[in-house]
Amino acid sequence: MLSRSHFQLHSRTRFRFLSISSPFLHNFSPIPKFPTKSRFRQPTRATTLIIRNSSSTPNSGSITAKPSSELRNKPKNSEPDDKLRRLRELFSRPTINIDAYIIPSQDAHQSEFIADCYARREYISGFTGSAGTAVVTKDKAALWTDGRYFLQAEQQLNSSWILMRAGNLGVRTTSEWLNGVLTPGSRIGIDPFLFSSDASEELKEAIAKKNHELVYLYDINLVDEIWKEARPKPPNKPIRVHDLKYAGVDVSSKLSSLRSELTDAGSSAIVISMLDEIAWLLNLRGSDVPHSPVMYAYFVVEIDGAKLFIDDAKVTPEVMNHLKNAGIELRPYESILSEIESLAAQGACLWLDTSSVSAAIVNTYKFACNKFAGGIGSLINKNKRTIPLGPNGESWEPSAVNKSSPVCLAKAVKNEAELQGMCNSHLRDAAALAHFWAWLEDEISNGVVLTEVDVADKLLEFRSAQEGFVDTSFDTISGSGANGAIIHYRPDPNRCSTVDSEKLFLLDSGAQYIDGTTDITRTVHFGEPSSRQKECFTRVLQGHIALDQAVFPENTPGFVLDAFARSALWKIGLDYRHGTGHGVGAALNVHEGPQSISFRFGNMTPLLKGMVVSNEPGYYEDHSFGIRIENLLIVKEVDTPNRFGGIGYMGFEKLTFVPIQTKLVDLSLLSTAEIDWLNDYHNRTWEKVSPLVDGSARQWLWNNTRPVAKPH
Amino acid sequence: MLSRSHFQLHSRTRFRFLSISSPFLHNFSPIPKFPTKSRFRQPTRATTLIIRNSSSTPNSGSITAKPSSELRNKPKNSEPDDKLRRLRELFSRPTINIDAYIIPSQDAHQSEFIADCYARREYISGFTGSAGTAVVTKDKAALWTDGRYFLQAEQQLNSSWILMRAGNLGVRTTSEWLNGVLTPGSRIGIDPFLFSSDASEELKEAIAKKNHELVYLYDINLVDEIWKEARPKPPNKPIRVHDLKYAGVDVSSKLSSLRSELTDAGSSAIVISMLDEIAWLLNLRGSDVPHSPVMYAYFVVEIDGAKLFIDDAKVTPEVMNHLKNAGIELRPYESILSEIESLAAQGACLWLDTSSVSAAIVNTYKFACNKFAGGIGSLINKNKRTIPLGPNGESWEPSAVNKSSPVCLAKAVKNEAELQGMCNSHLRDAAALAHFWAWLEDEISNGVVLTEVDVADKLLEFRSAQEGFVDTSFDTISGSGANGAIIHYRPDPNRCSTVDSEKLFLLDSGAQYIDGTTDITRTVHFGEPSSRQKECFTRVLQGHIALDQAVFPENTPGFVLDAFARSALWKIGLDYRHGTGHGVGAALNVHEGPQSISFRFGNMTPLLKGMVVSNEPGYYEDHSFGIRIENLLIVKEVDTPNRFGGIGYMGFEKLTFVPIQTKLVDLSLLSTAEIDWLNDYHNRTWEKVSPLVDGSARQWLWNNTRPVAKPH
Repeated sequence: MLSRSHFQLHSRTRFRFLSISSPFLHNFSPIPKFPTKSRFRQPTRATTLIIRNSSSTPNSGSITAKPSSELRNKPKNSEPDDKLRRLRELFSRPTINIDAYIIPSQDAHQSEFIADCYARREYISGFTGSAGTAVVTKDKAALWTDGRYFLQAEQQLNSSWILMRAGNLGVRTTSEWLNGVLTPGSRIGIDPFLFSSDASEELKEAIAKKNHELVYLYDINLVDEIWKEARPKPPNKPIRVHDLKYAGVDVSSKLSSLRSELTDAGSSAIVISMLDEIAWLLNLRGSDVPHSPVMYAYFVVEIDGAKLFIDDAKVTPEVMNHLKNAGIELRPYESILSEIESLAAQGACLWLDTSSVSAAIVNTYKFACNKFAGGIGSLINKNKRTIPLGPNGESWEPSAVNKSSPVCLAKAVKNEAELQGMCNSHLRDAAALAHFWAWLEDEISNGVVLTEVDVADKLLEFRSAQEGFVDTSFDTISGSGANGAIIHYRPDPNRCSTVDSEKLFLLDSGAQYIDGTTDITRTVHFGEPSSRQKECFTRVLQGHIALDQAVFPENTPGFVLDAFARSALWKIGLDYRHGTGHGVGAALNVHEGPQSISFRFGNMTPLLKGMVVSNEPGYYEDHSFGIRIENLLIVKEVDTPNRFGGIGYMGFEKLTFVPIQTKLVDLSLLSTAEIDWLNDYHNRTWEKVSPLVDGSARQWLWNNTRPVAKPH
Repeated sequence: MLSRSHFQLHSRTRFRFLSISSPFLHNFSPIPKFPTKSRFRQPTRATTLIIRNSSSTPNSGSITAKPSSELRNKPKNSEPDDKLRRLRELFSRPTINIDAYIIPSQDAHQSEFIADCYARREYISGFTGSAGTAVVTKDKAALWTDGRYFLQAEQQLNSSWILMRAGNLGVRTTSEWLNGVLTPGSRIGIDPFLFSSDASEELKEAIAKKNHELVYLYDINLVDEIWKEARPKPPNKPIRVHDLKYAGVDVSSKLSSLRSELTDAGSSAIVISMLDEIAWLLNLRGSDVPHSPVMYAYFVVEIDGAKLFIDDAKVTPEVMNHLKNAGIELRPYESILSEIESLAAQGACLWLDTSSVSAAIVNTYKFACNKFAGGIGSLINKNKRTIPLGPNGESWEPSAVNKSSPVCLAKAVKNEAELQGMCNSHLRDAAALAHFWAWLEDEISNGVVLTEVDVADKLLEFRSAQEGFVDTSFDTISGSGANGAIIHYRPDPNRCSTVDSEKLFLLDSGAQYIDGTTDITRTVHFGEPSSRQKECFTRVLQGHIALDQAVFPENTPGFVLDAFARSALWKIGLDYRHGTGHGVGAALNVHEGPQSISFRFGNMTPLLKGMVVSNEPGYYEDHSFGIRIENLLIVKEVDTPNRFGGIGYMGFEKLTFVPIQTKLVDLSLLSTAEIDWLNDYHNRTWEKVSPLVDGSARQWLWNNTRPVAKPH
């Protein structure tokens, strides 16, 4: 599955290897300006690729995923004006007193998938796309979204809204627009939980040009205020312990490592707000958002204690015991800010990743430090130096507080147990896919008419039958013909296409299992592919093989390898507008950082032994077809005959074992080594997966793993 | 020929895509700190690669290059103490009054090759290596150089000098050392012509930590002062007109384009100090430094006039006429600063590339602007905004003046006439090499004992016989056996090895012709190569082929392609510690920017149609052998069957046509496509070069261009 978010979230915002004004990204990427840079950056050569549609997923969090056909579109809201009117009425409350309000898509944790109760931008605007920012002034309302959603937004927004086509020439950014429409010196309100500290500082600076003030409304979210009873309840399904046999390392050991890092950095506590980091650190899994097995919480780790801020309705006695054993206390989710104040009062030196931690938390800490005895508080900047805060906090510079959370990298480098779980779950997933593809080919050959959603539902059924299945890891991308060329495509049960036996069919899907997370794309043809389709498929496959087979010196960042995956396409003037690989969590988020493999070269994180990345080159011909071939890979050290420079050389080991349709391969284009790769892959696929399947699935697997030979 | 300088000079200093504190380069490269960053940066994985040894080249500038055997080492100076004593005596002159003096390697133009009269660091220290900085205080003298020269510096420095092994753990930088040994508040002198403005600002900031003052000694170079009559005279050989049939575009047209750029940038004049830019812009060639056909000069272009600052002894009537036709006036070389003052007095808005233009010029402008009516002067910063200068110049920020010279890119993108000259000169060069290799193989097979220098001299003889030959384009790297593994190796006539028929022989050489510049490396074995040598050679060749055959979207920077050249080596755990390609001038400098192909990814300059780059992967086994295969390539647009994204796709066209020794190729490792490449290359080499040679050279060419086949 394609990811844009890992790049944005991690390379640009979380890791900040590049400043916003770096000519690097400006050269390659005219990035549309949004107030919150973390979520809306658009790769130059890429359509944005966030796959998120929490809106149309019921507020379940259920451990059993709902089939796609049950996902209903919300009815088009008939009273949008009324919502805006009520929202604007709040502007003039004396405790609020603002001239504009910005409603972003985010929850308070920069999550890729969010719970329905946090889908405020969707509620206020009626626009259900995954990316967008709504801005409401006293007499105007505007919504920014990117090229993927222009059509959808036009249909969903009523006439009270102005659609701002971000990225189009001459279209102003939110702050430029606000600077244009408001009287200088206006007050612009935000919910400071929904903006990272970095994003809010950037916004503050941009609107300061017109003397506007950024007003943090800590105590009230204006959309929630008008949403009232209709607002979905926050998720409260029980959380569960992630078994040590899958986690590999117990919580106490993880906390101990983290505390060493805190000590080394001269810090006395850290506030963690990324949900997957909390789940990983605590060996816990939740059901608060679709697709990601996480729970809403904040986690504060001090040198001599730790507190989890969570709705205790989710905490079972077993989980309670698990936490107690690791010395972790519980606190209400809502009490995070008073804890921050209390830490400041105690003179704690906090490690805050300002690219992910909210403006609410960072500013509360800042002001509390100023309030309590001068100079007590301090923040660690990126050079690991402690910057003491003066009594007026003058020396406190948020832009200098730039240490990424150490949990992110620790989580990305999987231990043996996590890798074993990933291997095992991938084989069960492969078995489900063998059953699925055998079924689908049979149905199509029998002339059964199936929609893209029918097919996705059936795939879910096969996966659900596998041991340890929990959920899909993202909304299945099931695209026939031209739909396959829409990179962010997600079939709508009411309007989707049937799977056409005369067209290419692209299926990108994945699952959450108790022991691992999968993500796989295959492209097939049920009839006779054209020579054009075969040539394109073959070149995508050559790129896939080139990356799979790459060997590279340790400490190589992923972007160095990206060209390997494109080279065969480039030779005939083709390319694809997305990155080639993203990190994947172990029984966690299907998109994670900090590593990536992309033509965007801001991300300097090396590919380290034990990381998991996707390998997913593609090619998309607008209005015609889409091709993508995706496996997941483990980064491993290769036993090379030499070790020039006295360093290790790294390579990949495959996790995914599902046949690649050889009918689509123009064998005359492949080198002997590439043919050997394909035959070896299929041979190993048969060996690994055949013991797990029987009947028609086994027959399908046999048929689809037969060796091929170069024509003479 | 390998280049480190193009990366340093252009990517880091001149183009400044990265700030000095960028985590990019720090991640990959622990760079030793020198005061002048432009010349001493050391790639992490690379031994530094500047090939420059002006010291041992006689002060000729002659159009006929001297054979290597005539290059004598200067005798080890017997009175270094006396030099230092006399230098220190100058410190206390009332008009000087300094506590330390820094003597860098540079001339005033950031040239790669310099005239002997500017080799002040060598004169004062006795150390003849190409890279180094000498610092003399009242009681200490220290010399910084890098790993290539530790041994040589130990031998050449007398006991008055401390050798500072730059890059070694714990070795302080010059400014750190000065901060340590001087009493706070000391005065540190420099010749402001020998530091770029950026370099001097960096130095000033570093020493300000101890309250030291950087003292610009405009009117006197202290080394010249003690060198006196022994100092070589500045070069004064006549310059010549570079024929329009080779230059392609006349001077007036070039000036007209440049003036358009000045106007667009809101600037009224530009000061150009890079010698190759001046030579290119004026269609003139000189003989002031070895290997580069340039002349010492400054060039000031205003909207309605242009002035060349040059010793008029070099200006022939023909050249005078040529300049007059283009509306260019002559001024004495030494009068550049008074011109700058006069421009400031007129309120000119100067375009200054502070990474190449000297501190003397930039500061003269700055102070003159302050002196004349407040706010008249101004500088263009990198955002093309004009920054007016206040009467005290407070708003003048040298760090913001960061526009690279527009001449650099214009020069790099060759026109048709320049490309034709490059093609033609490469064929004549290939003919000379065919004669040379035929001769050498014959001598070796007859048991004649030849040294590495004998061989280089003979090569020069064959090249000199070619029409339009001017000079070698750098000192020939002629390395037998283990010497081939020393990347910066240059044989010393008194101590070099003989060419061993049982060892690999690496020959990296090039020439300046009237119509073009060549640079080629071949590695051969005269006997039976080991299977190890064959495997390494074959993998270097595979990398060479992969880069040669690359196709890539327009606007791709060179670093994206670098991994193609390494991939085959990486697969067995090998690599090389230098970049893969540098720009080459058309009858100009053998190393030029702004483009490069390197694992260092700071250089964002795209490879543009018409640029010339080298393709020179290698492999070096310490104390054993070195392998490098180098061709020059033209960047061209490829006629791909598709143009995804509506853009052009680029590739390369070879300039170099000299056989690659197939004896060294393990054909079983090559793919069919790679064997086809080799056969096609040799076939074209025969077709292109055979008409230019006869006798044994023709026979040698025939023998060495026969097709090979993959063994069964």
